[in-house]
Amino acid sequence: MEIVSSKNVSSADNQQERIENCGWIVGIVDGEGSFLVNIFRSPNTKFGWQIFPEFNVSQSKKGIDILYALESFFECGHIYEHKMRNKNKRDWDSLFKYCVRSRKELQERIIPFFQKYPPHSKVKRNDYKIFVRVVKMMSEGKHYNIEGMRQIAEMTKYMTHRKSFSESSISKFLSSSETIRRA
Amino acid sequence: MEIVSSKNVSSADNQQERIENCGWIVGIVDGEGSFLVNIFRSPNTKFGWQIFPEFNVSQSKKGIDILYALESFFECGHIYEHKMRNKNKRDWDSLFKYCVRSRKELQERIIPFFQKYPPHSKVKRNDYKIFVRVVKMMSEGKHYNIEGMRQIAEMTKYMTHRKSFSESSISKFLSSSETIRRA
Repeated sequence: MEIVSSKNVSSADNQQERIENCGWIVGIVDGEGSFLVNIFRSPNTKFGWQIFPEFNVSQSKKGIDILYALESFFECGHIYEHKMRNKNKRDWDSLFKYCVRSRKELQERIIPFFQKYPPHSKVKRNDYKIFVRVVKMMSEGKHYNIEGMRQIAEMTKYMTHRKSFSESSISKFLSSSETIRRA
Repeated sequence: MEIVSSKNVSSADNQQERIENCGWIVGIVDGEGSFLVNIFRSPNTKFGWQIFPEFNVSQSKKGIDILYALESFFECGHIYEHKMRNKNKRDWDSLFKYCVRSRKELQERIIPFFQKYPPHSKVKRNDYKIFVRVVKMMSEGKHYNIEGMRQIAEMTKYMTHRKSFSESSISKFLSSSETIRRA
């Protein structure tokens, strides 16, 4: 699969191909991508929790060249393999994920691209907008105090969640006695 | 979601937006689309089987605006809802599918678009190429004789199958005693 990297985009000979390619990236992300904000227990940190924004795109093995194309386009991130029980529970399926978790890379590579080429679908565009605000707040250090962490967590209520929000770790963070006590 | 229809593409004011949009369609199809050739038992037909090429794109309810965008872009096809048992088997999930099954629409709307903007991923591009050959053979009436039907069925061996090929209806068609007897 031929793909123009995001860095070389302005010097690409073929302007039309370059734009079509940017549209293609957005289509893949609208279909299979996620802008997520994760929160994990992290006993060694000040508040016992840490917030991690993540951009990812999933594919089965058949579509792994799509993930390589994204990695080469954004010139950052990593591809991970996840093993999942398949429907018949007799076997394992592989799911592949292209992930960008570094805040620097999210700010310098991922967000600038989607500012220019935002997702088309309502749900993904909404997730993206909140994601950008979270990354911005983190770059301002808002997550270093409990009030900022709570604000971030509250914002993520309006994002897509794989499980229901009440089952998510964000919800657990918000309702934990430590969080309430410290607030 | 704003989308330019495939018909009005050449008159669109914004050339860049038009091309980005075409790239977006390809991205959605690379991620979530299928070029399929189905074969079904059809007792009232000459050979007892009928071949149906189909282009489709699936989405969960959250992404249904993507399917409306495709319907409006290609100005053909339909959106169907499928109910599927969810993982916990306690409930039903809805899956939505944008489908184009009319051979005329496949030939006049779908194939010309992807001739200009082919899928980027290897697997999808391969499926598309075979799909085009099948539709062409059918437009030449090759499926009206058993040898042509067998040729088409053999070609689909090299396409993606949801189940393994040996479990597919195409395989059943090829190995049925009627098919063998008539050949």
